[in-house]
Amino acid sequence: MDFQALSPELVLAFEHIVGVEYVLTAQRTEAAAYADYGRDHTEDLHFAPEVVLRPADAEQISRIVRLCHENHVPVTARGAGTGLSGGALPIHHGVVLSTERLNRIIQIDERNLQATVEPGVINEVFQNAVKEVGLFYPPDPASKGSCFLGGNLAHSSGGPKAVKYGTTRDYVLNLQVVLPTGEIIWTAANTLKNSTGYNLTQLMVGSEGTLGIITQVVFRLLPYPQHNILMLVPFRQVEQAAEAVSAVFRAGIIPSGMEFMEREAIAWSSDYLKIPLTLPEDIRAHLLIELDGQDLDELYKEAEQVYGVLEKYDVGEILLADNATQKDELWKIRRNIGNSVRYNSVYKEEDTVVPRAELPTLLKGVKEIGARYGFKSVCYGHAGDGNLHVNIIRGDLDDEMWDVGLRQPITEIFELCVRLGGTISGEHGIGLVQKGYIGIALQETNLNLMRGIKGVFDPHGIMNPGKIF
Amino acid sequence: MDFQALSPELVLAFEHIVGVEYVLTAQRTEAAAYADYGRDHTEDLHFAPEVVLRPADAEQISRIVRLCHENHVPVTARGAGTGLSGGALPIHHGVVLSTERLNRIIQIDERNLQATVEPGVINEVFQNAVKEVGLFYPPDPASKGSCFLGGNLAHSSGGPKAVKYGTTRDYVLNLQVVLPTGEIIWTAANTLKNSTGYNLTQLMVGSEGTLGIITQVVFRLLPYPQHNILMLVPFRQVEQAAEAVSAVFRAGIIPSGMEFMEREAIAWSSDYLKIPLTLPEDIRAHLLIELDGQDLDELYKEAEQVYGVLEKYDVGEILLADNATQKDELWKIRRNIGNSVRYNSVYKEEDTVVPRAELPTLLKGVKEIGARYGFKSVCYGHAGDGNLHVNIIRGDLDDEMWDVGLRQPITEIFELCVRLGGTISGEHGIGLVQKGYIGIALQETNLNLMRGIKGVFDPHGIMNPGKIF
Repeated sequence: MDFQALSPELVLAFEHIVGVEYVLTAQRTEAAAYADYGRDHTEDLHFAPEVVLRPADAEQISRIVRLCHENHVPVTARGAGTGLSGGALPIHHGVVLSTERLNRIIQIDERNLQATVEPGVINEVFQNAVKEVGLFYPPDPASKGSCFLGGNLAHSSGGPKAVKYGTTRDYVLNLQVVLPTGEIIWTAANTLKNSTGYNLTQLMVGSEGTLGIITQVVFRLLPYPQHNILMLVPFRQVEQAAEAVSAVFRAGIIPSGMEFMEREAIAWSSDYLKIPLTLPEDIRAHLLIELDGQDLDELYKEAEQVYGVLEKYDVGEILLADNATQKDELWKIRRNIGNSVRYNSVYKEEDTVVPRAELPTLLKGVKEIGARYGFKSVCYGHAGDGNLHVNIIRGDLDDEMWDVGLRQPITEIFELCVRLGGTISGEHGIGLVQKGYIGIALQETNLNLMRGIKGVFDPHGIMNPGKIF
Repeated sequence: MDFQALSPELVLAFEHIVGVEYVLTAQRTEAAAYADYGRDHTEDLHFAPEVVLRPADAEQISRIVRLCHENHVPVTARGAGTGLSGGALPIHHGVVLSTERLNRIIQIDERNLQATVEPGVINEVFQNAVKEVGLFYPPDPASKGSCFLGGNLAHSSGGPKAVKYGTTRDYVLNLQVVLPTGEIIWTAANTLKNSTGYNLTQLMVGSEGTLGIITQVVFRLLPYPQHNILMLVPFRQVEQAAEAVSAVFRAGIIPSGMEFMEREAIAWSSDYLKIPLTLPEDIRAHLLIELDGQDLDELYKEAEQVYGVLEKYDVGEILLADNATQKDELWKIRRNIGNSVRYNSVYKEEDTVVPRAELPTLLKGVKEIGARYGFKSVCYGHAGDGNLHVNIIRGDLDDEMWDVGLRQPITEIFELCVRLGGTISGEHGIGLVQKGYIGIALQETNLNLMRGIKGVFDPHGIMNPGKIF
């Protein structure tokens, strides 16, 4: 695609649409604040926007996008910038369109267990708002305290509760979208079921801002589960931890959380948070297992069944969190693994996913590949979903190895995923940094269909160009 | 689209691909058997195929479709023919491609709670096969004893259990598809999560055979729920039955079935089945409520909560089914409403769906419209999903009213659905008979996107032409 540089006339037109105070340029913005709009949480990558726009609503976004469409100017929509695949990076410059002002919870419909929200609402703010009226929005990425629902939609983000409750896409009923041509549509209806034409809703979810900009969402909600039980299970052998995951499900139990953490993952995070945690020398990995429901007695029965399954493995002393503070601390440790790794070193995060029972094989393969190519990895993730986050630590790897040399071992890791029936991203998306590997997961025919769909939605290719494929 | 009539050379080529015994033509097939390939369960519609092919596998289908693509011959894929929107009718004639020989359960993967099957497997056969190893495939349309999984995928069929467990689309991980050009792809990976490119899987599900032919499916499964409780609740006022639905959910209970039946629906079906049922004069509607789970004590607690909710309404004596036979009979009555209506009269079935709490308003509106235009309707359906099947009874309506006059009241019913936040099909699809109404539910922009997607997959427009839009 040939893109046009931004003309001063276009910047004036944007100022007319959104108001001059909501048009940020490098010239008149504090440098650090402006630079933030050119990065996300992916490695140490940065690309400078030509202009940053902070519109108020779908109508303004429609007018902006229409101008960009007519003038062949790239538009990269941006939420909180917590993405891990570079999806929000404006690699072709142009307009960065921040959704931070679209942050209203428009309606919580208690009669229908639904809510209508804007994409700039923080995930946890939304969770708390619906919890106040006894309702439950399950998707909870590690960054839930800062990430936007719009970004969650862009990548179909998951989180620990996905194992029982599914990912973001499982809660979306209907989307208001500004198309790359500026037209505004609703993708579906506010119903639990819909067999009325092609599923544009699920096509938008996970399309990483390449097909349009989501400006409102109707989510379905659940009754809030009143009780939960949390246990931290230490394993002396890493692969046994991975094996135990599958055994719990085969016993008929669906936990609301089933997280795997290598020794380094939990150790780095508890150090980073300064939360003391006893970690005997012989413990190599942990599972964090949560059960939830409406009846505590029932949960204790389930917990006993889980203990029964775990007896078959070489486990250390199981910690059963017995109050809210302890539960919060354990989840805080789990959620901050990524931050603690980032604090220690630059890293590349691979979002591998395989059928659940293949996790031990994947983990073994990752370590074997690391040993062969001489890099260290910290592994953790949503074991119940077969979703393993492999963090490759920069440590003292040189530029050549970091920028080029790692491509071969990463390729081997992804090829292993695909051989095991899996794929290269479970919840982070392809964005920029996994784009070079997508051919491992998808045939050229699939990619051509996707390119064709992209062309239908975005004939000038202006919407988040250079991502996914 | 301009289509070509089938040449004798093409029929010979098909015989070469699938074997002469699997190529049916009108000349050499018993007339009634041949005619069956030209109808489904939609009203009394019939369209004659030029040829019926019964291929054995994806490879044969690919070769057939490639020939049709090159020769501009329509291909209409067909499962068991139990569809209610005319999706399987070969309205442009050409090839009817029956999937009846693709009927293998290829693998039940107990380690990963997954199964790989072909589209010609009967829904109930699959359910029973996975149940034997303690696993659960929830989607259960009323026609589960005869309908194929392929047809379920085409329309994203639901059934009573959708209220707790979702519809067909919620169980699909990966699809093998023969594209309209003859290419064979897998849409995704065998994983519970996937953020790797656009969601082609969910685009295929519900596309009613217009984007390709599904030749294998990977479904996720659940542990089989060991216990259930079933209760039949009679209401003296129809709208109270609809109101009680929403109240149960707001009490934090998610039933595994929540079915609404008007008096006529349950009366006609029990008569048709010759199952005696006491039906006091003052009872106007019933709810059939099922609870399921792994623990019977827990279910009794939930049932008590349901009784607590129902106390607020003017209900008759609640029947708590206390053995398997009684449960089977109640479900049989529910599932045979459609058959009993068909037995009594030709009918048009509208698959209306609204947000759950709007059901009383919808029902009232349907009856009011019926009274105004002079037709009788029998209403029943999946109340927990807001999905109401409105059966318009032909009775003694004349041809003019049946063929033309009903368009206006049906339009008004659908407009009411959309005003209430709903849409025109929840689980039956648009197919042929709802096509004329799709503009009520979808903006022209949405339809243009769908047409564009269709063009990407099917440049010659051969795949089930004339359906949806």
